Amino acid sequence: MRENEVEGGFPSYVRLADALKLIFSELRRLPSERVGLVESLGRVSASEVVASADVPPFDRAAVDGYAVRARDTVGASELHPIRLRVVGSCVAGRKSRTRVRGGQAVEISTGAALPAGADAVVPVERCRREGDQVMVLEPVPSWRNVSKRGEDVERGERILRAGERITPADIGLLAACGYSEVEVSKRPAVSVIPTGSELEKPGKPLRGVKVYDSNSYSISAAILDSGGVPFLFERVGEEALAIQRAIRQGIVHDMVVLIGGSSVGKGDLVPSVVAEEGKLLFHGVAIRPGSPTSFGVVQGKPVFSLPGFPAGCLIAFDLLVRPAIHYMLGCEEVRVRMKARLGRRVPSALGRVDVVRVRMEKREDGWVAYPLRVAGSSILSSISRADGFILIPEEVEKIEEGTEVEVVLYR
Amino acid sequence: MRENEVEGGFPSYVRLADALKLIFSELRRLPSERVGLVESLGRVSASEVVASADVPPFDRAAVDGYAVRARDTVGASELHPIRLRVVGSCVAGRKSRTRVRGGQAVEISTGAALPAGADAVVPVERCRREGDQVMVLEPVPSWRNVSKRGEDVERGERILRAGERITPADIGLLAACGYSEVEVSKRPAVSVIPTGSELEKPGKPLRGVKVYDSNSYSISAAILDSGGVPFLFERVGEEALAIQRAIRQGIVHDMVVLIGGSSVGKGDLVPSVVAEEGKLLFHGVAIRPGSPTSFGVVQGKPVFSLPGFPAGCLIAFDLLVRPAIHYMLGCEEVRVRMKARLGRRVPSALGRVDVVRVRMEKREDGWVAYPLRVAGSSILSSISRADGFILIPEEVEKIEEGTEVEVVLYR
Repeated sequence: MRENEVEGGFPSYVRLADALKLIFSELRRLPSERVGLVESLGRVSASEVVASADVPPFDRAAVDGYAVRARDTVGASELHPIRLRVVGSCVAGRKSRTRVRGGQAVEISTGAALPAGADAVVPVERCRREGDQVMVLEPVPSWRNVSKRGEDVERGERILRAGERITPADIGLLAACGYSEVEVSKRPAVSVIPTGSELEKPGKPLRGVKVYDSNSYSISAAILDSGGVPFLFERVGEEALAIQRAIRQGIVHDMVVLIGGSSVGKGDLVPSVVAEEGKLLFHGVAIRPGSPTSFGVVQGKPVFSLPGFPAGCLIAFDLLVRPAIHYMLGCEEVRVRMKARLGRRVPSALGRVDVVRVRMEKREDGWVAYPLRVAGSSILSSISRADGFILIPEEVEKIEEGTEVEVVLYR
Repeated sequence: MRENEVEGGFPSYVRLADALKLIFSELRRLPSERVGLVESLGRVSASEVVASADVPPFDRAAVDGYAVRARDTVGASELHPIRLRVVGSCVAGRKSRTRVRGGQAVEISTGAALPAGADAVVPVERCRREGDQVMVLEPVPSWRNVSKRGEDVERGERILRAGERITPADIGLLAACGYSEVEVSKRPAVSVIPTGSELEKPGKPLRGVKVYDSNSYSISAAILDSGGVPFLFERVGEEALAIQRAIRQGIVHDMVVLIGGSSVGKGDLVPSVVAEEGKLLFHGVAIRPGSPTSFGVVQGKPVFSLPGFPAGCLIAFDLLVRPAIHYMLGCEEVRVRMKARLGRRVPSALGRVDVVRVRMEKREDGWVAYPLRVAGSSILSSISRADGFILIPEEVEKIEEGTEVEVVLYR
């Protein structure tokens, strides 16, 4: 198959960047919700968080040993140890009123608050205990082996930016500041509506000239992967009334994604139903594959229609719907990009963005991105096999072998 | 605070590579389970999957138009269109018995099975309909605008490897082959047991010399992030009996991770309890931070003990527990690595692996990795601020500014 959707010329294609502008102009950030710390992993923080207290909250021993006045240890050595009197002990979690004065030491365990008067800790391995005395075998400078109050985070310091994907370390930092919950963006609920009477559900026997519906599942997974929550609707046939009804049901959620029925011809129903029910902002984007994509708004809710060809469907999702979900979440793209040399010359058409799936190979002198030899927007296996893709801009006619390109990695 | 845990010398440190070998020698792959397609996103496939049928299952129209015999269109042009008789129509999902003979055409919609006799589709935009006839304005070569049977995947072809993290495209491919479920590795259930009487739960008021427990939350999130399922236990004090009881309860799950109580000195209880309850394979790893980590096996279950200092805890998790979870899942490391130039000279100690957290900055001539200026394994904010880390091997004493390094990215 050729890249059919570009042959089926739409009246006018909107450029990718303009399509995104139109989409963003219609979207709103979703409200936020509070979730527990572990649950917040990978979610998008809705607001900046500052430390409500110093971390650690007091000067602490960083090792097991003896809390001392650093100046008392000057000149200590294995041969000439300095003798200090042990006047008490400090254990993590238990308060101590002991004060360290000249010539004194306090036995201390890791994590315990440094007793008043002390300004350093001699590790247990650098001491020799003798009854109620301790022989210090090595001098310690001030604040050595002490984890100082506010050393990790000072009160008022920002510990989380708005719009960040929350990581395990962020969660640790929030916990260390005493937060048990965090404000995150709600995950956009997305209605996924497959259209097409030829579709059969996977797991059922395939009769006649039916084909398995694959887009509903790949797109639902892609929604999940982008931070949304997919709601998979029953397949609807290609009749205006059925599509209208499905859209009206779908807009109970934050976004609607219809699949199929977006090409030119008889099946070109979805965009016209969207136009009737609300407003259609574009139909046809200058990308390949994935061009027969439309976007509109029905009762304030964004409604996308993606092409039915599997690879075009998933690539249009990545280029148009994924950024929309991120916009609603208030976060940036999270996919990793890396530089590589192009392994083979790629021709491209002027006036559209070509999405070229590539397989990465590591060579001695760096990474090489090999374009997968596929013709066709239906070739789903090409994405499954690809490590990522490169975008060839509208004004570029070809990229020569060996050129440095930026690869957007799939995983 | 200095990197205290390397001052508190263990009798002998095991090298990182050897620690991993010891861990892997005690682990077993977990059994698999079947899950639904969308649910399988990000899970690890437990076995190879091959296509049970061709995708697409028959030759299909890739555009709306007219199914024809390609040779009938030779010489067609706008000026000299070729006239064919329309003898029927084919719609996606509905069977047609029409046969295309010389001089005939069949109206066809995208996705419909190609009727017998036809070997190409003329797009609707390249035709002019006139009653029961169609004027073809352009020749089409054989198989143009046809999505051929097995074009995407041929029956028997591998569509999923064992040990792969399942992506949206994989899910699409599985669905296209009719699979509604997929066999994935069970996610290891991990008991997380915080130790230390100084710990208070986030959200509760902090009294006296208590500190908030942050490790339980960062490590639970890190377990989730690695593909495991964390089960957070109540904090236990630093008494042998309490730790013994907690370990016995913890081994109902696939793995136990104790936090704190792993340093040398009084609090050095966990490894000795593990040794009593089962066998201790190592205590102390030549890494910084994170060295006071121990590993053992109790009743066949792996038991880790991580240091209580937050950054050391999370880094030891990344270097030792994360690979263990991946091993049980049967998958490879998924973190992305990229090359960068080191932005500042980093000294390192011989004989241990130094883990240097870095912040990435993009310069005109490529990425630069700036080591974060932190001293101390307690500095959790350093991980939160870092984009990734570099590992400085045992035999390297320093890395000069400008040297190319490999950065393991956190996100």
